[in-house]
Amino acid sequence: MDINIDKYKNITRNLERDIVNLNPIQRGGILPTEAKKVIYEYWDGYSVCDYCSGRLDKIETPPINEFLDDMSKFLGMDITRPTHGARESKYAVMNAICKKGDYVVLDGNSHYTSYVALERANLNYVKTDVEEYPNFRVIPKSYAEKIDELEDSGKNIGLILLTHVDGSYGNVSDVSKVGKIAKSKGYPLLLNCAYSVGRMPVDGKKLNVDFIAASGHKSMAASGPCGLLSINAEYEDEILKTSKVNVVKELQMLGCTSRGIPILSLMASFPHIIERVKNWNLELEKTRKVVFEFEKLGFIALGEKPRNHDIIRFETPVLDKIAEKDKRRGFFFYEELKKRGIGGIRRGVTKEFKMSVYGLTGMQVDYIIDCIKSIVLENAN
Amino acid sequence: MDINIDKYKNITRNLERDIVNLNPIQRGGILPTEAKKVIYEYWDGYSVCDYCSGRLDKIETPPINEFLDDMSKFLGMDITRPTHGARESKYAVMNAICKKGDYVVLDGNSHYTSYVALERANLNYVKTDVEEYPNFRVIPKSYAEKIDELEDSGKNIGLILLTHVDGSYGNVSDVSKVGKIAKSKGYPLLLNCAYSVGRMPVDGKKLNVDFIAASGHKSMAASGPCGLLSINAEYEDEILKTSKVNVVKELQMLGCTSRGIPILSLMASFPHIIERVKNWNLELEKTRKVVFEFEKLGFIALGEKPRNHDIIRFETPVLDKIAEKDKRRGFFFYEELKKRGIGGIRRGVTKEFKMSVYGLTGMQVDYIIDCIKSIVLENAN
Repeated sequence: MDINIDKYKNITRNLERDIVNLNPIQRGGILPTEAKKVIYEYWDGYSVCDYCSGRLDKIETPPINEFLDDMSKFLGMDITRPTHGARESKYAVMNAICKKGDYVVLDGNSHYTSYVALERANLNYVKTDVEEYPNFRVIPKSYAEKIDELEDSGKNIGLILLTHVDGSYGNVSDVSKVGKIAKSKGYPLLLNCAYSVGRMPVDGKKLNVDFIAASGHKSMAASGPCGLLSINAEYEDEILKTSKVNVVKELQMLGCTSRGIPILSLMASFPHIIERVKNWNLELEKTRKVVFEFEKLGFIALGEKPRNHDIIRFETPVLDKIAEKDKRRGFFFYEELKKRGIGGIRRGVTKEFKMSVYGLTGMQVDYIIDCIKSIVLENAN
Repeated sequence: MDINIDKYKNITRNLERDIVNLNPIQRGGILPTEAKKVIYEYWDGYSVCDYCSGRLDKIETPPINEFLDDMSKFLGMDITRPTHGARESKYAVMNAICKKGDYVVLDGNSHYTSYVALERANLNYVKTDVEEYPNFRVIPKSYAEKIDELEDSGKNIGLILLTHVDGSYGNVSDVSKVGKIAKSKGYPLLLNCAYSVGRMPVDGKKLNVDFIAASGHKSMAASGPCGLLSINAEYEDEILKTSKVNVVKELQMLGCTSRGIPILSLMASFPHIIERVKNWNLELEKTRKVVFEFEKLGFIALGEKPRNHDIIRFETPVLDKIAEKDKRRGFFFYEELKKRGIGGIRRGVTKEFKMSVYGLTGMQVDYIIDCIKSIVLENAN
């Protein structure tokens, strides 16, 4: 067999260890020390099953069962299950409660995984309107309009989906308003919390939602892949329906989901998560400082103002102009950042970029501000 | 919020580290050192996405793309994708190629996850016959009979499923025979290799199969949860159909699947896997030695003879008799093993138990044989 195995022998990663990482999809997933320790204990395959009596979510050693109950409290929901991630949570809900051909009404800022999940479940969709450039905010009343239109044309609506914080602009949706519309029309509401749960406070009951999809690796300081599906008791029978052949196994979970270290890392990070969510305001301060400083350079922050989330998307005509003259073209920004030990910005892109300083210290944030300022000022002439 | 976080602060595991583990679901998932090293590098959430250009299976750094090609060679298949495990691989196939209500014809030794997957996909099933006690072997010609019966009654068959090695008895199915039947009848064959790929040689082309579902945590020395779906090119369009909204994302993968350390551990373990599969005969020798020694004690090995897999299921009337008199009742065996540093045998069970010495050294195997012999002989009177 012609397989060169050398490439598997020393797989290393330098981002995060040697380089400050500004990638928004990674900043919320950095492990605290306590999570790293538990990985030593549970890295062998199926180690989580030592004392299993038939189902992952009922395991008491390690305390998965209690963890899921605690998570329900933390999220203001009734029942929680581990999943492989937010997309898998969304698919489980769609596959359980929607019928083939049903419509999902979802916001115009929805993540691609919301579409992929509904397509996999053979569903249709209607997108709600968002505000125009540069805010792109979700418009809650558009849900009422789209629902009315679908009802008037005799379409069956299976689910309302709202992205709590979108990954394109980092806008925080007005969930309560959408929740009220969904309730008054009689449809269940799924909130995609991939960028919120684990970063900022989320209370499902207050927000009027029926399902929460959360991501461990994206926002809960956990190893990938893992996530949570938190539901209201009202939907227990549908979502957590068990097998006719093996009566303890839940169909949408295929019996057990996150059967390994990702769920353990999520559990070990939970105390850290509880603490950091309380400091969300400090994170916003850092984010707003970055926006303030970089807008002085001519960057244009997209999305709502002031920023209510750590994801920042800048339009950067200044960088684009520099790239026109620089020998390195679009790569100059990436290269200059790299020289200064900063990474996580997409290579070669200068028209716009996304970044986050979530979880960085004040000194690191100042360093990043200084570096990017100097890159712009030194190269602008 | 009333959450006691102390329980998350020092989660440890003593099995495997302090205790020799005989649990068959865990012996194939123990990590070699090289896999542990890569976990240090990639334990942060979404670290695998550093250089992603849109899809997990195409990532070049770390070399996931090459790994999947190498895996296809290793398995004698055309195309391979990472999944969260064998059950998720099976569900992906069923959901992609079967229509609601279709029948799956599957062997009588099928794992519960095969049923859960087909139920989740809204499919029906017919079980094929297996031999009676004590062999319980899958009967290939029963597939032909069941297929004929379904066809005669006008039922639509969507998939043929065969368990390569079942988890109840560790019997190795005659795949080629079932493969020929499936081919001649014109149905695709999925082989559940959760207990074979990574332990023993498997060549999909030789075996006449269309899909292979494999488990990283069960048999490929990987952290949970992860697995592989390997397919023949003929089914590429159906299984790997992409989204209409985001044209690069594969629906059955929900875009990306094993986005974290499990897939990295699987890659780092690959050289180890290639080597150990070559030594499968040595594993069988150890297994057969255990069976030989314990049958002398009055244990009865179920399943085919001689054993062709490391899973051993013993009926143990001897232990049951001891339990009747022992103050500890059924727990005596577990307690006595524990005293001797042996674990992984279900607590309180004496009528029968399952075990495996896969991957243990000759000295460890001798130690286990001596211990169990002494437990039986010392307590039998």
